[in-house]
Amino acid sequence: MRFINLDKTASYKKLLKLAKKINKAGGSDALDAIRIRGSSTPIAAGLKYNWAAKKVSPDVLAALQELADEQELVAKYQALLDGDVVNTGEKRKVLHHLLRGQLGKPVIEKGKNLGEFYKNELERILAFAQAVHAGVHTGASGRKFTQVVQIGIGGSDLGPRALYLAMEGWATREGRHKMKAAFISNVDPDDGAAVIASVNLEETLFVLVSKSGTTQETLANELFVKACLNKAKLDPCKHLVAVTSETSPLANNKNYLDSFYIDDYIGGRYSATSAVGGVVLSLAFGGDTFKAILTGAHEADKAALVGNIHNNAALLDALIGVWERNCLGYPATAVLPYSQALIRFPAHLQQLDMESNGKQVNRAGKPVKYPTGPVIFGEPGTNGQHSFYQLLHQGSDIIPLQFIGFNTSQRDQDIDVDGSNSQAKLKANLAAQIVAFAKGKADANPNKTFKGGRPSSLIHGHRLVPGALGALLAHFENKVMFQGFIWNLNSFDQEGVQLGKVLTKQALSGNSGDDALDEYCKILEVSAASA
Amino acid sequence: MRFINLDKTASYKKLLKLAKKINKAGGSDALDAIRIRGSSTPIAAGLKYNWAAKKVSPDVLAALQELADEQELVAKYQALLDGDVVNTGEKRKVLHHLLRGQLGKPVIEKGKNLGEFYKNELERILAFAQAVHAGVHTGASGRKFTQVVQIGIGGSDLGPRALYLAMEGWATREGRHKMKAAFISNVDPDDGAAVIASVNLEETLFVLVSKSGTTQETLANELFVKACLNKAKLDPCKHLVAVTSETSPLANNKNYLDSFYIDDYIGGRYSATSAVGGVVLSLAFGGDTFKAILTGAHEADKAALVGNIHNNAALLDALIGVWERNCLGYPATAVLPYSQALIRFPAHLQQLDMESNGKQVNRAGKPVKYPTGPVIFGEPGTNGQHSFYQLLHQGSDIIPLQFIGFNTSQRDQDIDVDGSNSQAKLKANLAAQIVAFAKGKADANPNKTFKGGRPSSLIHGHRLVPGALGALLAHFENKVMFQGFIWNLNSFDQEGVQLGKVLTKQALSGNSGDDALDEYCKILEVSAASA
Repeated sequence: MRFINLDKTASYKKLLKLAKKINKAGGSDALDAIRIRGSSTPIAAGLKYNWAAKKVSPDVLAALQELADEQELVAKYQALLDGDVVNTGEKRKVLHHLLRGQLGKPVIEKGKNLGEFYKNELERILAFAQAVHAGVHTGASGRKFTQVVQIGIGGSDLGPRALYLAMEGWATREGRHKMKAAFISNVDPDDGAAVIASVNLEETLFVLVSKSGTTQETLANELFVKACLNKAKLDPCKHLVAVTSETSPLANNKNYLDSFYIDDYIGGRYSATSAVGGVVLSLAFGGDTFKAILTGAHEADKAALVGNIHNNAALLDALIGVWERNCLGYPATAVLPYSQALIRFPAHLQQLDMESNGKQVNRAGKPVKYPTGPVIFGEPGTNGQHSFYQLLHQGSDIIPLQFIGFNTSQRDQDIDVDGSNSQAKLKANLAAQIVAFAKGKADANPNKTFKGGRPSSLIHGHRLVPGALGALLAHFENKVMFQGFIWNLNSFDQEGVQLGKVLTKQALSGNSGDDALDEYCKILEVSAASA
Repeated sequence: MRFINLDKTASYKKLLKLAKKINKAGGSDALDAIRIRGSSTPIAAGLKYNWAAKKVSPDVLAALQELADEQELVAKYQALLDGDVVNTGEKRKVLHHLLRGQLGKPVIEKGKNLGEFYKNELERILAFAQAVHAGVHTGASGRKFTQVVQIGIGGSDLGPRALYLAMEGWATREGRHKMKAAFISNVDPDDGAAVIASVNLEETLFVLVSKSGTTQETLANELFVKACLNKAKLDPCKHLVAVTSETSPLANNKNYLDSFYIDDYIGGRYSATSAVGGVVLSLAFGGDTFKAILTGAHEADKAALVGNIHNNAALLDALIGVWERNCLGYPATAVLPYSQALIRFPAHLQQLDMESNGKQVNRAGKPVKYPTGPVIFGEPGTNGQHSFYQLLHQGSDIIPLQFIGFNTSQRDQDIDVDGSNSQAKLKANLAAQIVAFAKGKADANPNKTFKGGRPSSLIHGHRLVPGALGALLAHFENKVMFQGFIWNLNSFDQEGVQLGKVLTKQALSGNSGDDALDEYCKILEVSAASA
């Protein structure tokens, strides 16, 4: 296997030539029913990826296939599954797929089978959730736990929170909503205080999540929560469980009711299907729901091993993204789920994508000379239509769009108005937007003119159920992974967050030795000695 | 007054020349305490705008002042205040400033003094909120209203929701949190169903907000809510008030407990300080709180009339944004409030900015040839640090940053850990990030290198109280307005959302005459005849 920069590949040069022929601004008159029917690739669990409204001709697709082959994308994925040290900077394996099932060789380290380790932790999580639901574990005052609060930040917050919100309506409708969940993430003390004010502490189980056990924000929030429990005369040891690594100070610690483990091979932004998401989701919706999410993710992982880009949605999505970013020059991507349940899914993808591929250095530590990860943002439709779609339709930059939609709602509560129900209106809006962005509309008045040629893709399925959600999550994880391979990046470290941590410590010390930092601290009245 | 495109001004040509001299990628070694102290401009209500970490030299600032003068920015603002038809496409005045107080000539139309009209509606809102709090109005079963639910989308949702969340902690601490608020916006039926499931209908007052009275999403949600009330045997007429225009079908309608009015001169994204935000905020926090927000906004509006850019924060912020967008070529801006209370403020700014200036046609209806409004996105710090900051620090594009921070928390509940409280940690992180982005850090390992030269500004104040929030809101409204003047756009229409509306209707008709649209409807099973 060889690792080369994108601009050293022959297929990239071919793609750059093809890009010159594309009318970057013009409409896609070619979008018709035949093209739409011929542009569908299955993801898994009933989800499909439709790329008809993307600016890709057969020539472009052929060159993208060449790029996939030239950069050995599937072979690199297989090597990752087999336990290669893909996280080169930190010298770590990358094993989040193994949380969902075995697709590579057994990964053994120091005599320990890591697949078995993850499986064992999963079993422990499921048993624990069952015990909580059965009332085996109760709060310090003997009350049954009805509420779970996760304390974590970044990957310990965004993915689990997005999945929780995505399943809430479905679980309510199915009678599987066993415990409510809330999340404390920010070191801003107002975050924790607001959550604590909204729960009954006697019935609340806290899940403390920090792989290292040293995350500043999370430890501050843990102590805040413990102080609140102590004030309420509730023994914190009976109200907290930890999710951490076996070597962290939180492991095997009698201050927690129990501890569940991950390891260094599960990156934060890829940890939603580990104990990081598993404990809170199993408590909220039951272990079967969490297992169904894992199954959907595993199916999508398996589908991502196919070499033909027409049959591998994650691979194709990744390649088209690189085509748009590097050849067509588009700087950002909007994620637009037509599903209120996915309200925080764009925020999760923002971390997943921007933290993985927002880099300028390749996996060997050398600078690259081409654009890498784009800005990712988004809100659910139809809300976004009444917010930022003006710019998407008529702004000076073209922003590629990722639509997501489902045939049926989660809660099955709807009303007919003007001959259609709200779910039909939601979907009609989605269909209309894809066509409007692609085809545009001429008008004698330039202010009412839509140039069209604004590319989008559509991920769609019957209903947002646990399996579909798992497949959706894994699709994007795998897309981002493939893009990292194409750009020759290490998508699994995050050196860009280190400098801020160092300077924060200096700022808190009261004298950083940097007069600009000291001056900002003075303006903001940062004082190490607090009230 | 003359209206010319940006690329026809002499100062723009000067700025483009200056941009060539700027080291676009390099660090800002010049950032020191003296520069920070000399780079502060008051906004209003105790807020200040600090632009020390922006890439602006005295030469650039002088050219920006020339641009402000050449484009007659303050004179155009004054004309807007005086009632000129600034919304040229729709031939409307733009009067949201007048909601907060009089800064121009009296605006009289058909014998009606519009300032008096707005003032009168405000008085009616305050009296109504007081009557609800006093129990004069109750639910149909005689229970006191404890909950308000706003039904609205776009500007009828994002601004009011952002302000509600921004004040919740402060009001709780001050004993002014009179009613809880929730919001239904999306036509996705799961949105309304989830909110209805979370409230006690007997104690819930709904505020229906639609200027035209014809917004598809809002009317569908209204009928859904009414069906729920009817099912609970509660007369909807006693549970709904309307916010609308005097000519809408919702006006003077006995189906509502009361109606409050705005007019066509209050654009949706500029309507948070009208009845659109006023009813829900006065109900939630009392009329005094809403009036304090208006006072803060009015002070900021007044400060935006100053001609010297060093003393006009909104004007300077606007000019620096254009410098970054058009001369330095940066495609997006991140809004990063170090305040959990501002969690949805970036989403409001996303609409405000992208819907106002995401355009390619000038106010006379002619295409322009330069970049206009950027992509706006953001999440609160420190959460964002653990999400997308990797790309902001080390990604291939430079993204200008807008930080916001406060000296004290809202809820005053905090804990000391490792010698500092959480609020101090929050602020130390903020100070550290500004310096890290500006100065970067050299390292022998390119993967640990931070190039620096990533510009940011800081808006800061003592505490996020109603007056500061009003000033913050108005600051950005005025910034966006000035940028529209600079680009010679009409920032007050949104023709880009029309095509989608037309195609949605066609899609719902079952046969649109467009086979691509029909095919997408087939995939998504859009059916006009609902279950």
